[in-house]
Amino acid sequence: MAFRWPSEIRFVDTDASGRIHYSAIFRHFEAAEYEFLKAIGASYWDDRWTQQVSFPRVHVECDYLLPLTHGDQIETEVAVERIGTSSFTFSYTVWAKAQITCKGRIVIACMDRRTKQSCAVPTGFLQAIQPQP
Amino acid sequence: MAFRWPSEIRFVDTDASGRIHYSAIFRHFEAAEYEFLKAIGASYWDDRWTQQVSFPRVHVECDYLLPLTHGDQIETEVAVERIGTSSFTFSYTVWAKAQITCKGRIVIACMDRRTKQSCAVPTGFLQAIQPQP
Amino acid sequence: MAFRWPSEIRFVDTDASGRIHYSAIFRHFEAAEYEFLKAIGASYWDDRWTQQVSFPRVHVECDYLLPLTHGDQIETEVAVERIGTSSFTFSYTVWAKAQITCKGRIVIACMDRRTKQSCAVPTGFLQAIQPQP
Amino acid sequence: MAFRWPSEIRFVDTDASGRIHYSAIFRHFEAAEYEFLKAIGASYWDDRWTQQVSFPRVHVECDYLLPLTHGDQIETEVAVERIGTSSFTFSYTVWAKAQITCKGRIVIACMDRRTKQSCAVPTGFLQAIQPQP
Repeated sequence: MAFRWPSEIRFVDTDASGRIHYSAIFRHFEAAEYEFLKAIGASYWDDRWTQQVSFPRVHVECDYLLPLTHGDQIETEVAVERIGTSSFTFSYTVWAKAQITCKGRIVIACMDRRTKQSCAVPTGFLQAIQPQP
Repeated sequence: MAFRWPSEIRFVDTDASGRIHYSAIFRHFEAAEYEFLKAIGASYWDDRWTQQVSFPRVHVECDYLLPLTHGDQIETEVAVERIGTSSFTFSYTVWAKAQITCKGRIVIACMDRRTKQSCAVPTGFLQAIQPQP
Repeated sequence: MAFRWPSEIRFVDTDASGRIHYSAIFRHFEAAEYEFLKAIGASYWDDRWTQQVSFPRVHVECDYLLPLTHGDQIETEVAVERIGTSSFTFSYTVWAKAQITCKGRIVIACMDRRTKQSCAVPTGFLQAIQPQP
Repeated sequence: MAFRWPSEIRFVDTDASGRIHYSAIFRHFEAAEYEFLKAIGASYWDDRWTQQVSFPRVHVECDYLLPLTHGDQIETEVAVERIGTSSFTFSYTVWAKAQITCKGRIVIACMDRRTKQSCAVPTGFLQAIQPQP
């Protein structure tokens, strides 16, 4: 289950090095992640669980392999890397032309809004992100 | 009633021009505004009104007079420019060394959280931002 | 001469008010402006002038008429509002569904990179942004 | 060799969850890192190497242990975690009151500006970040 979302590195994404500021790639990850979720019919704000469960990010990482700069057309590939009982991991691969420029990973936990403790991934969300047979 | 808050232009504030990205100055305005409000004992989240009133920004502007870049030490002067019945205006003057580099203005409305209509500036907030005799 | 660019308000654009942080709209303005320039064949980095001229923003403003939040689909309309001898002004109108939510304006100066003084808008850039007969 | 830099989580750092957006902590890391470098007399822009060497980030990661929100006073502890021949690693520990809220790590490479290949950490920079006997 993979998905690619196109975007462009903007001037606001760069810094005085002339290249992207490393933190700006996370905005592109986020756009790609939300479009991926839309595409598979999943949502953090689904009426079935949004009152009970929140989805904080508990771990984020990224490797920067090649520089990017403003005007670069990228595609961010989002994949479900791991599904646990109370968390799941998305991976992000950023392509520019035919090369991988960044590889990221974000671990998202499911938290009971009332108890502030970790809780099970909501069934409907789980079904949406699971590999389809 | 004026107040100055020191900060530094960071690398993340810059873009590929080598200078500050124009939108980054608003983060410095915000830090200065909140420190100003702390200094005069005002807060948007005071228990006396935070359940009833929110404070959306309805107008923002900034003139850029001199370039800034990373490492520049600035001071942002915040002043109350105008107090209306249901809104107020803060002005921001950014100094680097002895020169003015940016001048901004933000109009903040008071909105009734229930009706979503504009409402009076809460009395306690008004008293705090009014010129002291 | 008007142009509309679609985008979506992302979670990173919001703040703890639950709505967009006022400064986040400038990222959407920027994407729309660059796509507008692409569409009319203009570019700040054209080989004919990029070594001689830079294009700093000297004034920015925005009125916020209606709240926006994550998931909102917007269209940013970019128009050339004024062309001067050494600067020009773009206007930005943000539509969500059929309503105007923000109206902005940015004044961009032409600066001689060597002298750091204002200079004429490059002829080719001027021709691209002028109303077509 | 450790160093702590105080800052405050600002409204612009938050998102509609009411807490900090995970990417905002990197601005605080950056401020702390630059202040740490100032304190030990190191700089990426030292005249002795800035024309020859750039310092791109090649890996970034962060674990989020406890939520942060606007108004929270934090201290970011910066430490040199590893020094290699052509890269080095800084660690970041964010404290709020007496608790650790985030732990991050950034790997910074030294790149020859001309060849775009990795190169040795400049001697002066290396000496500054090395543990003092």
